[in-house]
Amino acid sequence: MFDAITAPDVEAHREAVARQLQLTKPAGSLGRLEELGVWIAACQGSCPPRPIARARVVVFAGDHGVAAHGVSAYPSEVTRQMVDNILAGGAAVNVLARVAGASVRVVDVSVDGDTPELISGGKIRRSSGRIDIEDALSEEECAAAITLGRSLADEEVDSGADLLIAGDMGIGNTTPAAVLISALTGAEPIAVIGRGTGIDDNGWMRKAAVVRDARRRAMAFVHQPEALLRTAGGADLAAMAGFLAQAAVRHTPVILDGMVITAAALVAEDLAPGAREWWVAGHRSVEPAHDLALSRLQLRPLVDMEMRLGEGSGAVVALPLVHAAVRVLAEMATFDTAGVTGPEGDPAPVPAANQE
Amino acid sequence: MFDAITAPDVEAHREAVARQLQLTKPAGSLGRLEELGVWIAACQGSCPPRPIARARVVVFAGDHGVAAHGVSAYPSEVTRQMVDNILAGGAAVNVLARVAGASVRVVDVSVDGDTPELISGGKIRRSSGRIDIEDALSEEECAAAITLGRSLADEEVDSGADLLIAGDMGIGNTTPAAVLISALTGAEPIAVIGRGTGIDDNGWMRKAAVVRDARRRAMAFVHQPEALLRTAGGADLAAMAGFLAQAAVRHTPVILDGMVITAAALVAEDLAPGAREWWVAGHRSVEPAHDLALSRLQLRPLVDMEMRLGEGSGAVVALPLVHAAVRVLAEMATFDTAGVTGPEGDPAPVPAANQE
Repeated sequence: MFDAITAPDVEAHREAVARQLQLTKPAGSLGRLEELGVWIAACQGSCPPRPIARARVVVFAGDHGVAAHGVSAYPSEVTRQMVDNILAGGAAVNVLARVAGASVRVVDVSVDGDTPELISGGKIRRSSGRIDIEDALSEEECAAAITLGRSLADEEVDSGADLLIAGDMGIGNTTPAAVLISALTGAEPIAVIGRGTGIDDNGWMRKAAVVRDARRRAMAFVHQPEALLRTAGGADLAAMAGFLAQAAVRHTPVILDGMVITAAALVAEDLAPGAREWWVAGHRSVEPAHDLALSRLQLRPLVDMEMRLGEGSGAVVALPLVHAAVRVLAEMATFDTAGVTGPEGDPAPVPAANQE
Repeated sequence: MFDAITAPDVEAHREAVARQLQLTKPAGSLGRLEELGVWIAACQGSCPPRPIARARVVVFAGDHGVAAHGVSAYPSEVTRQMVDNILAGGAAVNVLARVAGASVRVVDVSVDGDTPELISGGKIRRSSGRIDIEDALSEEECAAAITLGRSLADEEVDSGADLLIAGDMGIGNTTPAAVLISALTGAEPIAVIGRGTGIDDNGWMRKAAVVRDARRRAMAFVHQPEALLRTAGGADLAAMAGFLAQAAVRHTPVILDGMVITAAALVAEDLAPGAREWWVAGHRSVEPAHDLALSRLQLRPLVDMEMRLGEGSGAVVALPLVHAAVRVLAEMATFDTAGVTGPEGDPAPVPAANQE
């Protein structure tokens, strides 16, 4: 379904590593900011890299049958209300994106209610199925959702996006995300279940039972990413996976958000092996499953602010670091041009990747 | 020498904590970003807080007699060259400040050479003394350096600065910083000595010997901050301490940078007890002494990018998080205004401070 993924450019990577050593700072003294700049240069195939001019956040909104089963502190109607809030510019992701120089788009993938036509043109269905007892999606719906995500990535890149962020909005969506992470990492259900939006102990026990049952249904498909999304994911998660995979096909760097997006990323890496080389982890969520998923992808988060909001908020909070990393590499003076004496000894090598 | 420090506003703090619970997000889901916004509201005495409009970085440049003793990978002349580089806008701190919406000023406190008049009007002396065998400063010079820092904070606040960052530039300056941290935390010299700009094993051993000797000279003065700065600090460190203390007197929030600034902050807290309530730690440096100093101040860093550059770079990298935290509190919709249904249970309390 996806074209083969090629890795970021080796030559630009090498040039960027060399350039870091010429900039007026002790070798390696900007730490992970140096690695990040090198990675963007490699993604762009250009050293110095161009400033990020059009960072786009696409928020995938969808409801989940399991929400009626008491796995969230909020009722499902909040999904639609929050979609309106994002459209009006009042949600956290809107504010954070304004600060970080990104713009936000929200898409109704599977909201259990009506949303404006502007955002519901590709809608797959109303809510995904209750995954503890039934499939989230039919085979056709799942394929359509992946295609929707893929098309969204194409649209954004064709409109000039040079960095992509996927966000999630959906009451109950940490439950299918926990199932996917549990199935794909082999972790026990109890290790992947967090408090989501803030459930109490009874809610946590209900969530644990749902995750256990859905995981049992999912285990046959851990090597079939599409079947896994259909059985135990949801239309929003399938669309996210398609989006993240296609961003890599289109050679566009992605900042991953928290647990839900990273669950979709795990599946996307199976759909399009090598896609992860085009992603960096924005933040570490307090949701326990997030670390498991990041470890599996060998990605190390940039920021740890103990956030657990979703919407792409954790990725957007990390975006200024990417801006900073790119502009350091593009704008800092070199020892030569600034007339600054270099170190006496040999400079230390710069670490080389976005990954651990 | 400093007016008594009063704490950030309790009423604005309380209002900000309450406001976080009204914003359209699960209670506490923005984690430390929520604490940070509450802290700025308390510093400003205003909820919602005003956006940070004039963040200023003041870089304190100074040389150190110990640099001739082989404690750095770079020769002392680099201090003056880097001052020129900062003036020309080509150093890391300039680029990072442009990205983060801050402006940079550099001040020659004790550079061992001539710098433009624009920045050397308050110059204390050429280089500070070699602290392993002599005092860094005379009593008069030390008082003048603290006063210089205090005046710089006053000037900046009087010119409208609403957030201050101190940066350092000086070959060899991690050596006196290590001595101050070692003396004030009781840590052994070996626990506070890092690689600075990137010294080799022989350089590390020379640095260890200097720190050991200077610490021995300093230990009599651990309860006399001015005498400590004079004996084992330097003019730049004294000016930084005066600046950080006066920022608190003037009720202006500060983002602390790495090891050198945090060493000065330890002394500033002794000069003006309570000043630390006006500071937040920007980043965790890879210099081992930095964590010791932060623990002593009970400050927890916002960002950990494995940086060790100085110049204020680590604080400036954290500045976008402060912008984000303030604007979340000021601009996000509330459950009421957005027509979003709140959680079923009681909201969780928001953690309450900038500190651990």
